Amino acid sequence: MITARAIEGLGEIERGADLAALIVAAGADLQEGDVVVIAHKAVSKAEGAVRLLSDVRPGARAHELATEQARDPRLVQVILDQSRSLIRATHGVLICETTHGFICANAGVDLSNVPGDEVAIVLPSDPDASARALRRRLAELTGVTPAVLITDSFGRAWRVGQCDVAIGCAGLVPAEDWRGRADAHGRVLRATLIAVADELAAAADLARRKDAGCPVVLVRGAAHAVCAQDGPGAVSLIRSAEHDLFR
Amino acid sequence: MITARAIEGLGEIERGADLAALIVAAGADLQEGDVVVIAHKAVSKAEGAVRLLSDVRPGARAHELATEQARDPRLVQVILDQSRSLIRATHGVLICETTHGFICANAGVDLSNVPGDEVAIVLPSDPDASARALRRRLAELTGVTPAVLITDSFGRAWRVGQCDVAIGCAGLVPAEDWRGRADAHGRVLRATLIAVADELAAAADLARRKDAGCPVVLVRGAAHAVCAQDGPGAVSLIRSAEHDLFR
Repeated sequence: MITARAIEGLGEIERGADLAALIVAAGADLQEGDVVVIAHKAVSKAEGAVRLLSDVRPGARAHELATEQARDPRLVQVILDQSRSLIRATHGVLICETTHGFICANAGVDLSNVPGDEVAIVLPSDPDASARALRRRLAELTGVTPAVLITDSFGRAWRVGQCDVAIGCAGLVPAEDWRGRADAHGRVLRATLIAVADELAAAADLARRKDAGCPVVLVRGAAHAVCAQDGPGAVSLIRSAEHDLFR
Repeated sequence: MITARAIEGLGEIERGADLAALIVAAGADLQEGDVVVIAHKAVSKAEGAVRLLSDVRPGARAHELATEQARDPRLVQVILDQSRSLIRATHGVLICETTHGFICANAGVDLSNVPGDEVAIVLPSDPDASARALRRRLAELTGVTPAVLITDSFGRAWRVGQCDVAIGCAGLVPAEDWRGRADAHGRVLRATLIAVADELAAAADLARRKDAGCPVVLVRGAAHAVCAQDGPGAVSLIRSAEHDLFR
């Protein structure tokens, strides 16, 4: 059985926050095999991966795109700074390939308010490294070494709406490979590579309310995907163009 | 809290099987607000949505594609019969738009063995209707009206691996619309439309082992997405080309 339980009461995350200590203080009773799922916004805030819009000087490209798409040129500049390439710009949305290689709207940049200004929250610069650090710190504090999964909500090709997906992970097998194994009838399964990290991200999202400021969810029962090593990280879920039949 | 529990012991599903009766007999203790998640293969078998390969006469197009892709021309014919259009054919995989409008590998057709032959299991012809019928029958048998979700494993653009997604549902809000609502800081959320049905499909998949022949998972704790009406079904999750920024 799988359970996904929101960890309430972390409060507002400040720059420099010890997320592991906050998670433990909020009463997360960790066990081996658990997956600690955390929305990237909390990680970004703790790491200072934020930019005050009043500090941003948009360049010519940002001004041009901002006019076309009716967006704030400073925000557009932040999005471009977070991107390796721009896939599409339409309907006020920039579909970007982020510096990490993820394909998502607005390079994963979210806007938030601070008194007298607006702040752009960007993705952590290396979410797999963030996951590994959080994992180590949780182990230090609790003696238990859970898997850690950092998520964001991504839109998808072909289908309506967003699902949470993995942008960073440690101690987790991101994709379980069932190719070549046999099914219940002894028939070898074809092309079965399950993106477990993304399924865990989705399951965790169900347990939190979007308006509740609740970034952390504890998923239990998926120990088969938890491993002793940090593993290849969520970067291994990025599909290269030459192997992508679906784009 | 979300829980996802596999319902074991349904046994092999025969054509004409009363799936609701099998689910109840297997000990699923349904409550209002539950989501009964079922892998499409079980529904297809019960509905007879299968084709013996020995009965299939491949046409010229199927022969041509089969030669190109090193596949069985009879299987290719079944895949073409299930498709509205062929998006791509490469590496032995046909990426299809199914008759329903879903984009997936091989039009969702799976091969299975029967004594002396091979059988192609195809998607139910109207998975939303299948979900509605199963929901009604579960209500008749138990007095409880759960949501019903029929799933398949789909590959995705941009990302490695497959995730389970919704291909049919009843009694479920397939996508929760948070656009225009405020977050914890009173800031209006932008473009937040959560594909809950797909997140539920993913969560359920975590609870089953691919080799265990275990098609049914009971998800509890997502009552916010369960509704009294049958709702718009999973067909509402198909993104039209003009609104798809990600393909």
